[in-house]
Amino acid sequence: MNAAAGVLLTDLYQLTMLQAYHDSGMEETAVFEFFVRRLRPGRGFLLAAGLEQCLEYLEQMQFAPEDLEWLASTRRFSQDFLASLERLRFTGDVHAMPEGTVFFPNEPILRITAPIAQAQLVETRLINLLHLETLIASKAARSVLMAPGKLLVDFGLRRAHGAEAGLLAARASYIAGFGGTSTVLAGRRFGIPLFGTMAHSFVQAHEDEAQAFECFAHAQPDNVVLLIDTWDTEAAAHKVVALAPGLEKAGIRIKGVRIDSGDLAEHARRVRRILDAGGLQDVIIFASGDLDEYALRDMLAAGAPVDGFGVGTRVDTSSDQPYLDCAYKLQEYAGQARRKRSEGKATWPGRKQVYRRFDADGHMAGDTVTLETAGQAGEPLLVPVMRGGGRLASAPTLADVRGVAAGNLARLPEPLRQLKDDDYPVEIASALHKLAAQVDRTALCLAAGLSESRDRPGAAGPAFPA
Amino acid sequence: MNAAAGVLLTDLYQLTMLQAYHDSGMEETAVFEFFVRRLRPGRGFLLAAGLEQCLEYLEQMQFAPEDLEWLASTRRFSQDFLASLERLRFTGDVHAMPEGTVFFPNEPILRITAPIAQAQLVETRLINLLHLETLIASKAARSVLMAPGKLLVDFGLRRAHGAEAGLLAARASYIAGFGGTSTVLAGRRFGIPLFGTMAHSFVQAHEDEAQAFECFAHAQPDNVVLLIDTWDTEAAAHKVVALAPGLEKAGIRIKGVRIDSGDLAEHARRVRRILDAGGLQDVIIFASGDLDEYALRDMLAAGAPVDGFGVGTRVDTSSDQPYLDCAYKLQEYAGQARRKRSEGKATWPGRKQVYRRFDADGHMAGDTVTLETAGQAGEPLLVPVMRGGGRLASAPTLADVRGVAAGNLARLPEPLRQLKDDDYPVEIASALHKLAAQVDRTALCLAAGLSESRDRPGAAGPAFPA
Repeated sequence: MNAAAGVLLTDLYQLTMLQAYHDSGMEETAVFEFFVRRLRPGRGFLLAAGLEQCLEYLEQMQFAPEDLEWLASTRRFSQDFLASLERLRFTGDVHAMPEGTVFFPNEPILRITAPIAQAQLVETRLINLLHLETLIASKAARSVLMAPGKLLVDFGLRRAHGAEAGLLAARASYIAGFGGTSTVLAGRRFGIPLFGTMAHSFVQAHEDEAQAFECFAHAQPDNVVLLIDTWDTEAAAHKVVALAPGLEKAGIRIKGVRIDSGDLAEHARRVRRILDAGGLQDVIIFASGDLDEYALRDMLAAGAPVDGFGVGTRVDTSSDQPYLDCAYKLQEYAGQARRKRSEGKATWPGRKQVYRRFDADGHMAGDTVTLETAGQAGEPLLVPVMRGGGRLASAPTLADVRGVAAGNLARLPEPLRQLKDDDYPVEIASALHKLAAQVDRTALCLAAGLSESRDRPGAAGPAFPA
Repeated sequence: MNAAAGVLLTDLYQLTMLQAYHDSGMEETAVFEFFVRRLRPGRGFLLAAGLEQCLEYLEQMQFAPEDLEWLASTRRFSQDFLASLERLRFTGDVHAMPEGTVFFPNEPILRITAPIAQAQLVETRLINLLHLETLIASKAARSVLMAPGKLLVDFGLRRAHGAEAGLLAARASYIAGFGGTSTVLAGRRFGIPLFGTMAHSFVQAHEDEAQAFECFAHAQPDNVVLLIDTWDTEAAAHKVVALAPGLEKAGIRIKGVRIDSGDLAEHARRVRRILDAGGLQDVIIFASGDLDEYALRDMLAAGAPVDGFGVGTRVDTSSDQPYLDCAYKLQEYAGQARRKRSEGKATWPGRKQVYRRFDADGHMAGDTVTLETAGQAGEPLLVPVMRGGGRLASAPTLADVRGVAAGNLARLPEPLRQLKDDDYPVEIASALHKLAAQVDRTALCLAAGLSESRDRPGAAGPAFPA
C-alpha cells in the first residue's frame, strides 16, 4: 500500500522487453518523459503531485529473492536474465516539476534518464502514482478555488478506489489546499490534520437523538460536532440549542453541527437562524454530501451560511474526469532523439524543458516547451531532483509543497481561477518541430536502407547542463 | 496494499464513535447492511465482488501496539478506551451474496451482525473494498457481454487509482469473465493468467522496426505478439510477413500482432488481408486503446477481424460511472429495527433477504427484498459466510467465482444482456413497508416522551434461522 508496493506491480511486457534488451545487449541510456496529452473541456489546468512517492519507489526498487523465484516458476525468462535482475537498482537521473506546480497538456512533468532496462521497468508504477495524485490534486484545487477561506476536509476514503487511492487522495487534496482529511492512516503517515464527527448509525443506535448528542459530547469534549440530519434537521438543531447550557455547565462547548442531506444551503440558513436565536452564534455549520467545486460555488454564491465542507467521493474519484490521458514515452535512446507517430498519439522527441512567462501582475502569461539545450526566456519548471539514483535534496515537507501549490494557484490567470474555459498559451518551440522533422527524415532513410551515420539528430547534452 | 491494509485505514469518526460507545457501555449487537442506492441510466445491473478481501480483513483486523501508541499520541482518546482496542477482534457473523452474483439497487449484498463497536469500526474499509471490486466487475461484465468468445485482457494498471485499485481491478475483471491481465503481481497473488506484448518504446529504441520484432521474437519465442502501430501499421504488417519464414526456420512461430491507435477496425481489416496474403492466417490480431463495451460492440458489429482486446483505463476506472452510490447502514441495534429518514437517503430497516425468481427458460424474472424472517418464494441470495468471526467454508477458488459470474450473466434477461436499459423488477415486500412504518411510529412516540416498552418492532430472530 505504500510507494514500495513491490517491483512486480508492473505490466508483464516490461519484463518481456527487459529480457529482449538483455539478450541483445541493449543497455544504453534512455530518456523517458511523463506528460498529459489533453484535458476535457472546462478542465483548464493541472496540479503536479505524486513525485515524492515516485522517488521513494525508485530508491527502494529491487527484486527480492522470492520475486525472482516466482518469475523463474513462470518459465518465461532465462536464468541469465533473472540473475541480472537480482542486481538491478535504479541508478539514473530524474528531472521534475516540484509537486504543487501548475502545468498544462504536452508539458513533461517528469523525465527519467537511465539505462534502458531501468527506465523501461519503472514505467507502469511511475504512471500509476503520478496519474493518481495529479488527477486528485487537480480536481481538489478546483474546490479550493471555489471556496476561498472555507475549511475543506477530505471525506472520500470509502469510495476512493482502494486503500492506496484513499491514502494518496488525502495527500493530494491536502497539497491542493484542503485543511485535512478523515482518513486516520493519512494523519499518521503524512501528518495531515484529522477531522471527524459522527455517523448516522451513531444517532440511530441511541434511544433518542438528544441522548446521542449528549453521549458524544461527553466522550469527545474537545471535538463536539453533531450530525443533525438523521431524521429532521431543524428539530435536531433545536435539540442542540436545548443541550448547550447543560454541556456548558460541564465545561463542554459545542463546536459545530453537520448537515449531510437535502437542500444543504436551505437547511444551513434555517439551522443558522435556530442556532443564533438560541445564543449559539459561535457554533459552526459543516456541510457534506455529493459536493464538488460547482456545488460549493453555487452554495456560497447563494450566501449559504456554511463554514466548512466535507468533500468526498467526487474529488477522490475525480468523478467528472476519472482519468487523465497521460503517457510516459521514450524521447531519446543512445544519444539519438526518438518519437512515435501513431495516429493521434505522436510525441515530440528529445529532452525537454518548460519555460513559463509572467505578466506585470505576476500572473502566468504563457509557457514554451522546447529542447533542454535550446534555451528560452522565462522560468524553467523542470529541475533536477535525483542523480545517479540518489536524491539531490531531502524531501520537502508537505507544508512546503502546500506553499508551492498555493503560490501557483494564486498566479493562475483569472479565467482559470474562475474555472472558466481558457486557452492558456503553450507553445511548442521551433527547436522541437525541427528535431521531429529530422527524426522522421532519419527514419525514412533507414526504411530506405540508406546510411545515416553522419548527422545523427538530437545528440544529447550532459544530463545536467551547467 | 493487501486486504489487511491496517485497522487505521478508516475514518476518524469510527474511532470517536467507538470512544463514545465505550464510555456509555453500549455493546449490544448491531446489524449493518451494504447496498447500492441507485445506478445511472443504462447501467442495468451489478456484479458482486470483493467479499473475499472483506473476509480477509475481518479475520486479520486488530490494533498493533504501534497503532495504539500513535492513537494515544493524538490525545483524542482515553487510556481505558485504547486498552479496550488492544483486545478488539471481529467476532461477528457475516451473510453475503457470493462473489459473481448479479444484483440490483436496494438489495443488500453483505450483512454484518456483531457488537456495535466491531460492526461500526469496519464500515470504511468494507465499503472501500466492496465498492471498488463491485464497481469494476460490473463494468467489466459489460465488455464480456459485448464480446462473446473473444479474449479480453486487463491492461489498466497504469491508470487505475493506485496499487490496490490496479491489483483488485485485475481480480474483479477476471471474475467478470476477462481472460487475464497484464499486472504481474495479480498473476502472482491471485493466479490470474498473464498477458503482455511490447511497448512502443521497445520499437523506438531499435534502429528499425523489423530488427525490434526479430529481437523480441528470439527473446520471447513462446509469446511473439508484435506491436505494429508505432510508425505505419500496414507497413509493419508487411515486415511481419517478411520475417515469418526466417523465424519459422528458427522454430519460432509468430502468435499475433497488436494495433493500439487509429481506426482499429479499419486497420484490423487491412492487416488481416496482408497477413492472410502472406500465409499468416493463424496469426491473431489483438487491439487496444480507449476500449470499452461500446467500442467492442461497434467493432464486432462492423465485422472487424479482431481476435482479442486489451481493455484498460475505461474499465479499471469505470470511467462512465466512476463510483457507486452505495452505503453501509445500521438496520438493527439491541434487537430493535432502525432506519434513517434523511432526505433522499432513507433506509429500509431490519435484517433482510433477497429472493430471486426465474422464468421457464431459467432467466431472472424478478427479485423481492424482504425481512429475513418473512419467507418468500424464490431463491435466497444472501448466505451465511462467517460465524463468530470464523469462516463457514474455505474461500472459493477464482475459477469457482468465475463460474458463478458466468452462470449469473447467462441468466440475465435478454435486454440486460444487450446492455439495453431495463426496469428489472425489484419489489420491496410489504413486511418491510410495515416495519418501516412501525419504526417511525416508535420514533414519534419517543420524541413525544411516550413509553413504548411493549411492542418493540423488529425483534430479531436468531442470526442463522433454521
